[in-house]
Amino acid sequence: MAANDKIRIAIFGGSGYGGSELLRILLFHPNADVVLVTANEHAGKHVAKVHQNLNGLTDLVFTAAPDEVSDLKGVDIAFFGLPHGQALNLVPQLNRNIKVIDLSGDFRIDDPDIFRQFYKNEHAGEIQSKFVYGLTETNRDAIRTAEYVANPGCFATAALLALIPMAKSGLLEGKVVVDAKTGSSGSGAKAAANTHHPQRMNSFYAYKPFTHQHVPEIEQHLYNVANFDNELVFMSHSLPVSRGIFASCYLQTKVNLTNEDAENLFKHFYSDSFFVRFSEISPDVNWVKNTNFCDISVHTSGRNVVVFSALDNLVKGAAGQAVQNMNLMFGLDEKTGLMFPGSNP
Amino acid sequence: MAANDKIRIAIFGGSGYGGSELLRILLFHPNADVVLVTANEHAGKHVAKVHQNLNGLTDLVFTAAPDEVSDLKGVDIAFFGLPHGQALNLVPQLNRNIKVIDLSGDFRIDDPDIFRQFYKNEHAGEIQSKFVYGLTETNRDAIRTAEYVANPGCFATAALLALIPMAKSGLLEGKVVVDAKTGSSGSGAKAAANTHHPQRMNSFYAYKPFTHQHVPEIEQHLYNVANFDNELVFMSHSLPVSRGIFASCYLQTKVNLTNEDAENLFKHFYSDSFFVRFSEISPDVNWVKNTNFCDISVHTSGRNVVVFSALDNLVKGAAGQAVQNMNLMFGLDEKTGLMFPGSNP
Amino acid sequence: MAANDKIRIAIFGGSGYGGSELLRILLFHPNADVVLVTANEHAGKHVAKVHQNLNGLTDLVFTAAPDEVSDLKGVDIAFFGLPHGQALNLVPQLNRNIKVIDLSGDFRIDDPDIFRQFYKNEHAGEIQSKFVYGLTETNRDAIRTAEYVANPGCFATAALLALIPMAKSGLLEGKVVVDAKTGSSGSGAKAAANTHHPQRMNSFYAYKPFTHQHVPEIEQHLYNVANFDNELVFMSHSLPVSRGIFASCYLQTKVNLTNEDAENLFKHFYSDSFFVRFSEISPDVNWVKNTNFCDISVHTSGRNVVVFSALDNLVKGAAGQAVQNMNLMFGLDEKTGLMFPGSNP
Amino acid sequence: MAANDKIRIAIFGGSGYGGSELLRILLFHPNADVVLVTANEHAGKHVAKVHQNLNGLTDLVFTAAPDEVSDLKGVDIAFFGLPHGQALNLVPQLNRNIKVIDLSGDFRIDDPDIFRQFYKNEHAGEIQSKFVYGLTETNRDAIRTAEYVANPGCFATAALLALIPMAKSGLLEGKVVVDAKTGSSGSGAKAAANTHHPQRMNSFYAYKPFTHQHVPEIEQHLYNVANFDNELVFMSHSLPVSRGIFASCYLQTKVNLTNEDAENLFKHFYSDSFFVRFSEISPDVNWVKNTNFCDISVHTSGRNVVVFSALDNLVKGAAGQAVQNMNLMFGLDEKTGLMFPGSNP
Repeated sequence: MAANDKIRIAIFGGSGYGGSELLRILLFHPNADVVLVTANEHAGKHVAKVHQNLNGLTDLVFTAAPDEVSDLKGVDIAFFGLPHGQALNLVPQLNRNIKVIDLSGDFRIDDPDIFRQFYKNEHAGEIQSKFVYGLTETNRDAIRTAEYVANPGCFATAALLALIPMAKSGLLEGKVVVDAKTGSSGSGAKAAANTHHPQRMNSFYAYKPFTHQHVPEIEQHLYNVANFDNELVFMSHSLPVSRGIFASCYLQTKVNLTNEDAENLFKHFYSDSFFVRFSEISPDVNWVKNTNFCDISVHTSGRNVVVFSALDNLVKGAAGQAVQNMNLMFGLDEKTGLMFPGSNP
Repeated sequence: MAANDKIRIAIFGGSGYGGSELLRILLFHPNADVVLVTANEHAGKHVAKVHQNLNGLTDLVFTAAPDEVSDLKGVDIAFFGLPHGQALNLVPQLNRNIKVIDLSGDFRIDDPDIFRQFYKNEHAGEIQSKFVYGLTETNRDAIRTAEYVANPGCFATAALLALIPMAKSGLLEGKVVVDAKTGSSGSGAKAAANTHHPQRMNSFYAYKPFTHQHVPEIEQHLYNVANFDNELVFMSHSLPVSRGIFASCYLQTKVNLTNEDAENLFKHFYSDSFFVRFSEISPDVNWVKNTNFCDISVHTSGRNVVVFSALDNLVKGAAGQAVQNMNLMFGLDEKTGLMFPGSNP
Repeated sequence: MAANDKIRIAIFGGSGYGGSELLRILLFHPNADVVLVTANEHAGKHVAKVHQNLNGLTDLVFTAAPDEVSDLKGVDIAFFGLPHGQALNLVPQLNRNIKVIDLSGDFRIDDPDIFRQFYKNEHAGEIQSKFVYGLTETNRDAIRTAEYVANPGCFATAALLALIPMAKSGLLEGKVVVDAKTGSSGSGAKAAANTHHPQRMNSFYAYKPFTHQHVPEIEQHLYNVANFDNELVFMSHSLPVSRGIFASCYLQTKVNLTNEDAENLFKHFYSDSFFVRFSEISPDVNWVKNTNFCDISVHTSGRNVVVFSALDNLVKGAAGQAVQNMNLMFGLDEKTGLMFPGSNP
Repeated sequence: MAANDKIRIAIFGGSGYGGSELLRILLFHPNADVVLVTANEHAGKHVAKVHQNLNGLTDLVFTAAPDEVSDLKGVDIAFFGLPHGQALNLVPQLNRNIKVIDLSGDFRIDDPDIFRQFYKNEHAGEIQSKFVYGLTETNRDAIRTAEYVANPGCFATAALLALIPMAKSGLLEGKVVVDAKTGSSGSGAKAAANTHHPQRMNSFYAYKPFTHQHVPEIEQHLYNVANFDNELVFMSHSLPVSRGIFASCYLQTKVNLTNEDAENLFKHFYSDSFFVRFSEISPDVNWVKNTNFCDISVHTSGRNVVVFSALDNLVKGAAGQAVQNMNLMFGLDEKTGLMFPGSNP
């Protein structure tokens, strides 16, 4: 597409944090034109009254979700940032000329039984086959030609970017343990007991032991990309920061691996992936906050390997990766509109 | 009362932060025996399942609020930690042998018109005359013989302890400005938009400009105690800490005052008040968190004076001061059960 | 200057937070080319190893500060982000073709006696007359033609943007009280006792009562711009956020002022100032973090007025305003390179 | 000892967080009398000027560390809260009638080679054999008769209390992975880059991968207590809270284990241990802050088991456990002086 061409964009679910971040990014994307943004409870309100950070930067007004979404005139792509289960109903109604990126879990799982078990919903069925899994760094070719993209979960992005280089290396044996931690914005924009500031600010705890819904998504993509199906233990924890996911991934190799060997493996694997940065020391969620970067380090001790990955759950873990995927779907450089740095303090 | 005698205590509203703090203190008070604690939404649940900090420390079980509170057999005192407006109805039903300490604003304001304006409720009426205002340090004698105590608001406690020594000195002229800041626990135990962690942790803002309901309480007590009725500007702000109130009070004196003079005035005024500590530098809410202390400093520049006060909104600003008042009402040393220090980090 | 022309930039003091933020902004400024960045203790190190947020975004390497700064070949403008006192020595040595923006307090005060009193240094002397005070919104014309700009202090920016519209209105009488609060990044990038995380995270306190060095800067500019010299009481406090300044400014008017009148006064005053946003409710430092915005609200009660202003101390309070000034000095739109939004959570 | 008898106590290193917490606890311990507290850099200063939380609660004054510690007249027990390496020199000089509890790592490791490798110091030598490892819950009998106690590390306490019940069960096979996280007070009272508030408040990262000095301590005690020597992978991370350690321990059992079986195993193991509380859901560091409790939950999935433990690094992880040990050494109930609850918000 030409440098000045604009992609006409609809955002379903613009009041949550996913929608808020899509807006923050897309309003400054040189090829993006947001023409519709829905938020039922804020219909008629200026976007900037709900997302005060956008005050002065947009005149957009929230609309109610249209009853009929089939005919979104002139829209090129629709982003869905709705609670789990809603895009399942809406996407099939869409005019087939409209591309889709869904940020929920509705279209991430191919196996209907597994989907039902983890999401307590009926599986999408036939339309699922049109969805490409949007982990940009491992799925670029498929994404480029995809009409529909299922954007990965935040935990899944952090875990997969850490695990795939090792999984593909053929060096692994035994069980994989992923100890993952997320900031409070991962719980969404609605106030709830687990994000109540007086307690959360001093808090760290685990939740959903052995049962987090990102587990099957990680397993499925590890198998699809790396033919890897070793046992996976995944544990989710809550961090008292606003933004950030940190995954500590414990692996075992068939032979001793030096630190240098492991580092080279990662550097090589991500040599063409701008948004994955390799670090010699452990990354820090502070380095990547507000950015589309995923920072990774790897450390070995005999046959034990630990991989650390850090990203911003709302950017590389959601809206940023969605825009990265949109860029590919429209023939743009994947970095377009995503070249904003984080801040040091 | 004898050293081993126990005061039999009922707590109405034990699931909020006021009730939680009352329990934390009273369970370790040598003369306290909590015999009843209500929480409608948790009726039948162990207290320690709701307040996990008390796990292992109590077998108390929440009960529903009794329909009839008139006959609380054997109860010596009832604490009310209910939302504004509820104690108004319950207190008049109580058996007259039961003392009362109310932590809400229901019985703090003598003037019915002012009460209606700020609390949007009908005034208590006749029963109000039985209530003594529970700012311990300035009202000890009345509290000792009181049956009913209206425990001061958290902001009011911080402001009054800072203002009264100067107000009583006769040195003040002109307007008083109080810039007050509170931690997030001041908003209570229920999750809400303004205490949603992802935003609150990076947040500072003002609210209710010129209209906070603690204003008339401060004005009334300043007048009652110090015959002081200069104009008062009071502004409330939200701090991203869990606990703490900090008040910056800007005053003007009729003549120049040295720092030393001002310090001596405060030291002298509070020489018999264990829980007001004088500091040469600005106090810090970190010094007083989890304690019943109010730390104060005073600084002058010509005829300008600033007084800083810091306290824990849930302790000296609520439950701690309530227990301090209970101690006086039962002839105990006011420090009984309140001699726990805060922690440095 | 043409859209693709580049301003060649030297940054003295690139390892502190001021320098870090200058880099974050200038690396993405369409007309900026950072050709030199100094940091004595990091000389020879990659900038991105010190500011990990810039990893992957720059190949710049820190250099030691040159002994002789007179001949910075081809440099168009030098930013000074050094500790107070250092630019005083360096600026006079510079080649006269190089423009200067100094972020320290070295060139903000015209009166030598006052400067000495607050900064404990010898005054700049003659060269001071070449410095223009860089509060963009009130000094645009002078800044456009300035060679040397003294960038305002963070507190001073927040206070002045709140006070000047009222001060110029001629409506004020009596004393002005400014209760100002700053985030921890205001203390700089070096670890110190007052920014030690275990205590600071639970902390709020005042410091330097009546003696903060931004006081004379505020008074001088209020007088220069609005001929205003009413008494000013300014108090600085420490907030447990990373970024943000919030100023609560207490004023008195000669006549009663409605909220609407006061709002209109501000809206009109800043109608051409993109980076000052007017809010109906109190602004929040969370709304402006990482941005160049200053958000303001005003509220009245009879003749009492309070103005709240919120900004990011490192952006509008330092590096952002510096770039805004650079834009004017080089004939660019003042918004160039500064159109990045903050984030909601 | 009789209820009113006092243990005369010396604290070496009273300005750090370990010393600060010892003071906070011991000043309110019914059988404790702190007669000496050292802090070289604060010698001559009131303790309450350094630990403002203790203001009004003690008149103690810091002394310089005595050159000769041999003759501490009348002292019954000396606590050492000094940086690693200092107690090594001081303890051998002490009069043999004085009991010792050392909070550093100086006397935790029996094997001289391992000690040298992890602590870069010469091993204590012969005197080491007099030291009992002070993990109260697993070593009570030895502690009761010990003269010298090596108080466990904070990470080691969290890991060992989580691991020992399973390790002793004989049910485990394979590798153990401990993913451990600590609050910022674990880095001590001295300001440093990694505890600089502007960055730390948004931070989470790993450090010392595979090389943390608590590893050999955990391995040694697992072997001594449970004859357990399976491979251990231990990883330390930094949390942006002030207080708290959370350990996620990943285990594998030889046979499938139900949740209920695992829970019963823990409940039974700790049935006589007041300070270990069992929880059905994941514990939270917020529940245990400022307390001597360690909260534990266990969850199974087939042969995979995860144990979560949460404690306050400065209390159960340091000073609180030290006092618990002192109580045993002097024939007191181990709970004496430690029955303070944490707070909910």
